[in-house]
Amino acid sequence: MRTNLQLVLRVRPEGRVSLDHFEVREQPIAPLSDGQVLIETLYLSIDPTNRIWMSDRPQYMPPVAIGEVMRGLGLGQVIESRHPDYQPGDLVSGLLGWQQLALWEASSLRPLQKLPRHLDVPLTAFLGTLGLTGGLTAYFGMMSIGQPKPGDTVLVSAAAGSVGSLAGQLAKRAGSRVIGIAGSADKCQYVTEELGFDACINYAQENVAAALDRICPEGISVLFENVGGEQLEAALHRLRIFARVVLCGLISSYNDVELSGPRNFDMLLHRRATLQGFIVSDFASRFPEALAELVPLVRSGALKYRQHIVQGLTHAPAAVNMLFDGKNHGKLLLQVAASVER
Amino acid sequence: MRTNLQLVLRVRPEGRVSLDHFEVREQPIAPLSDGQVLIETLYLSIDPTNRIWMSDRPQYMPPVAIGEVMRGLGLGQVIESRHPDYQPGDLVSGLLGWQQLALWEASSLRPLQKLPRHLDVPLTAFLGTLGLTGGLTAYFGMMSIGQPKPGDTVLVSAAAGSVGSLAGQLAKRAGSRVIGIAGSADKCQYVTEELGFDACINYAQENVAAALDRICPEGISVLFENVGGEQLEAALHRLRIFARVVLCGLISSYNDVELSGPRNFDMLLHRRATLQGFIVSDFASRFPEALAELVPLVRSGALKYRQHIVQGLTHAPAAVNMLFDGKNHGKLLLQVAASVER
Repeated sequence: MRTNLQLVLRVRPEGRVSLDHFEVREQPIAPLSDGQVLIETLYLSIDPTNRIWMSDRPQYMPPVAIGEVMRGLGLGQVIESRHPDYQPGDLVSGLLGWQQLALWEASSLRPLQKLPRHLDVPLTAFLGTLGLTGGLTAYFGMMSIGQPKPGDTVLVSAAAGSVGSLAGQLAKRAGSRVIGIAGSADKCQYVTEELGFDACINYAQENVAAALDRICPEGISVLFENVGGEQLEAALHRLRIFARVVLCGLISSYNDVELSGPRNFDMLLHRRATLQGFIVSDFASRFPEALAELVPLVRSGALKYRQHIVQGLTHAPAAVNMLFDGKNHGKLLLQVAASVER
Repeated sequence: MRTNLQLVLRVRPEGRVSLDHFEVREQPIAPLSDGQVLIETLYLSIDPTNRIWMSDRPQYMPPVAIGEVMRGLGLGQVIESRHPDYQPGDLVSGLLGWQQLALWEASSLRPLQKLPRHLDVPLTAFLGTLGLTGGLTAYFGMMSIGQPKPGDTVLVSAAAGSVGSLAGQLAKRAGSRVIGIAGSADKCQYVTEELGFDACINYAQENVAAALDRICPEGISVLFENVGGEQLEAALHRLRIFARVVLCGLISSYNDVELSGPRNFDMLLHRRATLQGFIVSDFASRFPEALAELVPLVRSGALKYRQHIVQGLTHAPAAVNMLFDGKNHGKLLLQVAASVER
């Protein structure tokens, strides 16, 4: 009988997360019933939203319950199937969870997406440039909500991250001036020299408000917000009239016990801004449209990307902290299976 | 020679405003030059935005400068004219300022709107149901941004006020369920019994969050926000997915020295809300459309309204405080001329 290794939420973290908040559980897998599929987890996507799901604050999905396997988006390979639509060897993506083996059945209602067998992009692109928490989020946030145009000044926070890096490149392709914010000189160099942003503010070195006054005295037409906190306040203060604010994430607050909002929230009124919060799954019916745009750009190398891979399931909590510390360089993935074959 | 009485901003208030922040200046009026019009102020509209204009925080217009006549929207009558478009006796509205006599010339760029001579609505309707800070704000905020539909639950703060009372009635006419928030039992009774809202929460008596749980457990589809602070937080917590937030005003913060935003700002993300700030003048090109809708409703009495008139120019600062204390019942006006003839 196979044994599964799982990270089960044991206690809700207040502040930073650690392995202590989880039970590392070995769980035997019973023989499959009709309709079930057994999937080996290859990679997990490590995202700020993992941290949201650990809290019992109101949020866009139910929080992970105490005693449940931690929720996580992943790529896997079918190793056994009693469902006609899936064959051993099939590559799939879905909410596989923080576990080595995921048992799926259609009645669970969790969508499981089969990946094409022959597509000349790297497998991990399906968690990155073509993934939910990467390219698809960037695409719908920037193109549907932000709607950058020539003449616009677009500000992207977490600009070296999995979403920001793509969101900014899409805005450049739309003809806008694009400014990034990132947390190190190395990241800023990557953002300007490799990704082609017009400028990048290193918030670890320079006051963001002062830098914005220097770099875009004309103000901000489109704000693609991933961070919140003082960076958001600096940006709100400098919105142009009728600015658009794409509210994609607020990572600076996800570890907070006491919530806070931008103190100058009133600038949304004075500048007559339109702010829209979104979750990529709201756009599920339009994923084919986005992929039709993105796949050729990924194939041709027109969209630049980098990924950062951490090894081993039990390092998942530490990997989440890397996002909060800005320690990852590009899309953060956890490789779960010892060897990943395709 | 005529003498003008003016309230000139002397020092910026921190917190509440008083007459001490103004110089009461008697100013002789020189004989008119070509192109000038002299207007006697009949009524001034007392609005939360008067308080915004006194602060030097970033805002949607330049703040009133120290030494300038306080800015204010008013109704007046032309008493002398050397401009071909205006004749003595003409009734006008515009930014007349906190003064008995306003000298206007086309080169000042301040728009001056001539009122129709024969329109069977009361003169003060042009600062109320048909005015910028009354009906027009309510109309564009609710109908263009809020877009209430049958099945929607619409929440309106400051529901007994000049904008909220009309915004809620417009949402009722659109077939939505409409809930108000107001600051006294008397106001709540007015809101439900006279204005026809489905319910009204008396925030002076009941915790707004608990009341919302009781009155609209289904959540809020459209939030018409005039207040901010804890009322806004209670509403954000209860937004439905894809809710629309009409950001019209944030009166609870206009006296604050230290700014603050809603602590649960993140709910805009989780509920994928769209928030839009607006100022009525953004819609100036569409005023005729709004008036075509509103005038018949005012004439027929279908839109209910009440006004609260305070006498005397030097009471303007105290009148502004009435807005913050919820002491006004309906649209707050200051009658400036001793007798108002038409």
